[in-house]
Amino acid sequence: MVYETLNKVGEKYALLIDSYISDILRGEPEDLYKAAMHLIKAGGKRLRPMITLASSRALGGASSEAKAVYYAAAVEILHNFSLVHDDIMDNDDFRRGIPTVHKVYGVNLAILAGDLMFSYAFLTPYLAIKAGADNNEITKAVEVIGEGSRKIAEGQGYDIMFEKTWDVDEKDYLKMIYLKTGALIEASSKLGGIASNSDDEIVELLGEFGRFVGLAFQIRDDILGVFGDPAKTGKPIFNDLKRGKKTILVLYASKRKEEWKKFFIKLFSGNQSDENIKEAVDIIKESGSLNYAEELAKNYYNNAIDKLDSIEKNGIVKDEESFKSLRELAEFSINRDK
Amino acid sequence: MVYETLNKVGEKYALLIDSYISDILRGEPEDLYKAAMHLIKAGGKRLRPMITLASSRALGGASSEAKAVYYAAAVEILHNFSLVHDDIMDNDDFRRGIPTVHKVYGVNLAILAGDLMFSYAFLTPYLAIKAGADNNEITKAVEVIGEGSRKIAEGQGYDIMFEKTWDVDEKDYLKMIYLKTGALIEASSKLGGIASNSDDEIVELLGEFGRFVGLAFQIRDDILGVFGDPAKTGKPIFNDLKRGKKTILVLYASKRKEEWKKFFIKLFSGNQSDENIKEAVDIIKESGSLNYAEELAKNYYNNAIDKLDSIEKNGIVKDEESFKSLRELAEFSINRDK
Repeated sequence: MVYETLNKVGEKYALLIDSYISDILRGEPEDLYKAAMHLIKAGGKRLRPMITLASSRALGGASSEAKAVYYAAAVEILHNFSLVHDDIMDNDDFRRGIPTVHKVYGVNLAILAGDLMFSYAFLTPYLAIKAGADNNEITKAVEVIGEGSRKIAEGQGYDIMFEKTWDVDEKDYLKMIYLKTGALIEASSKLGGIASNSDDEIVELLGEFGRFVGLAFQIRDDILGVFGDPAKTGKPIFNDLKRGKKTILVLYASKRKEEWKKFFIKLFSGNQSDENIKEAVDIIKESGSLNYAEELAKNYYNNAIDKLDSIEKNGIVKDEESFKSLRELAEFSINRDK
Repeated sequence: MVYETLNKVGEKYALLIDSYISDILRGEPEDLYKAAMHLIKAGGKRLRPMITLASSRALGGASSEAKAVYYAAAVEILHNFSLVHDDIMDNDDFRRGIPTVHKVYGVNLAILAGDLMFSYAFLTPYLAIKAGADNNEITKAVEVIGEGSRKIAEGQGYDIMFEKTWDVDEKDYLKMIYLKTGALIEASSKLGGIASNSDDEIVELLGEFGRFVGLAFQIRDDILGVFGDPAKTGKPIFNDLKRGKKTILVLYASKRKEEWKKFFIKLFSGNQSDENIKEAVDIIKESGSLNYAEELAKNYYNNAIDKLDSIEKNGIVKDEESFKSLRELAEFSINRDK
């Protein structure tokens, strides 16, 4: 898969966003700010800010980018905050190929660094005032970030709870991944719409685009958790299986055959030898779970593309290249191996 | 000490704020929201929302209260968020006389409940729109909350760092307690000014009032940490001494006599027998630390009152009773035993 436009636009945006965040997340005490920048400095896909910047430029042209960059930075800071706290909760040692924040700085400073980043996620949109945003726009942007952050916490709550119960079906799973992952990508695309001064209806369409991309992205994430290459994902493999996560891969197989469900119940209750993990992977393939998950992600991808088509029909696209990069971002979300 | 006006106004405000927060902090998953409400339900002084409500009513009359109650709720939610995360970091078992959130719900859900509360601190001010606030006012209110939350994290960062170093003087201590405690009380009084549509200059004066109250309040807190009655404070005693906190009580004594400093260095490096704690208490009294801290708090109280006097001179006080309760709140902050 070659993402010609995305690669071109993406690299530019990643550099832009990194330089803005480095300027914004500065202060004292030094150790706390270092801890807050630790994960951000390690890179990452920058998917969310790219969506904000590409949506904004696609519909608002180059002039809206000066505002959008602050919303994009806010979203990326919020995303990184959630990763820092997640890694503490999951006791993960590695992320993006480097030791996690709490491994380097200790749990207390990591909790606090997350909280600091959280506050910056709300303060950063205000910087768009100097790029011409008015208070109406700031109010909208901050509310979108607030809703996103609330949903992340709720989604994480479900995620933790689902580890301890088998009373979870596909609908529950989809709700959980929407809250945990989809909502912030939805926020990212909405913020691009807000920066471009688009009509509410267009902002909503962009939001739906982001929601579908987010769902596809998380399903792909769950697939990579079992079939990915740690050298590319930067994360250890089989963590979800070891933690009893009720991903779609596990839920689908467990619904298809009682025997498979029994196997996963046993696996999740503690017997996690290499052979057992291997058997789990075999079941996920044999049951059709992998295919099913890929189809599901594909469906969401198609829905995302439909939303872009609806936006295009309005004849409001100002920058074709940025708009095309949104299509490629959606495609990336279901095909990515990192 | 009898706080006639404060008792009357305060009880009304505490009930009001509790009922609003109970209505706002609702949602799913149930366990997460229960964890978020755990500490709030246990009561608390509600000092911060009282300051917001009293400032607002004092200068804006009864009509501004409908908006102010949302800002007051936001501040109280933010305050409780910071306590939930603090208790995890300090591994405290009790707060407000009940087991802390992480003791009841586990560390993971407590981190998450804190994050959820954090997001609500930013979403709650938006509810003031239905009480007549416009986007300019919301923008101001949310920014004040954002600045407050950033400072809390920075202050906590210093607090943690100071446990591990003796390179801390009174100036460092005062900066730390301003960030950790003063800033949110400053935000509380500013928000009252914003709700009452006061001029920027008055909002600033209110902020300074809050800042001084906050400094006095935290110094009193440090005194109660050594001389308080756990049955009244709801917190275990001597925690600060056991944790090596460089409170003003310790800093002042350590500066006065090398011998006392050596004692505290030894105490903080691990030898915390009952006799040693008792000796620490004796040193704090003998060194004049207790007197000094009380005088310092008194000074801040006087500064706070000066700010109220300046406001009063403008002839803008609309509700004398609420204004008087602000004076009593300042007095409470230096005389309280809970």
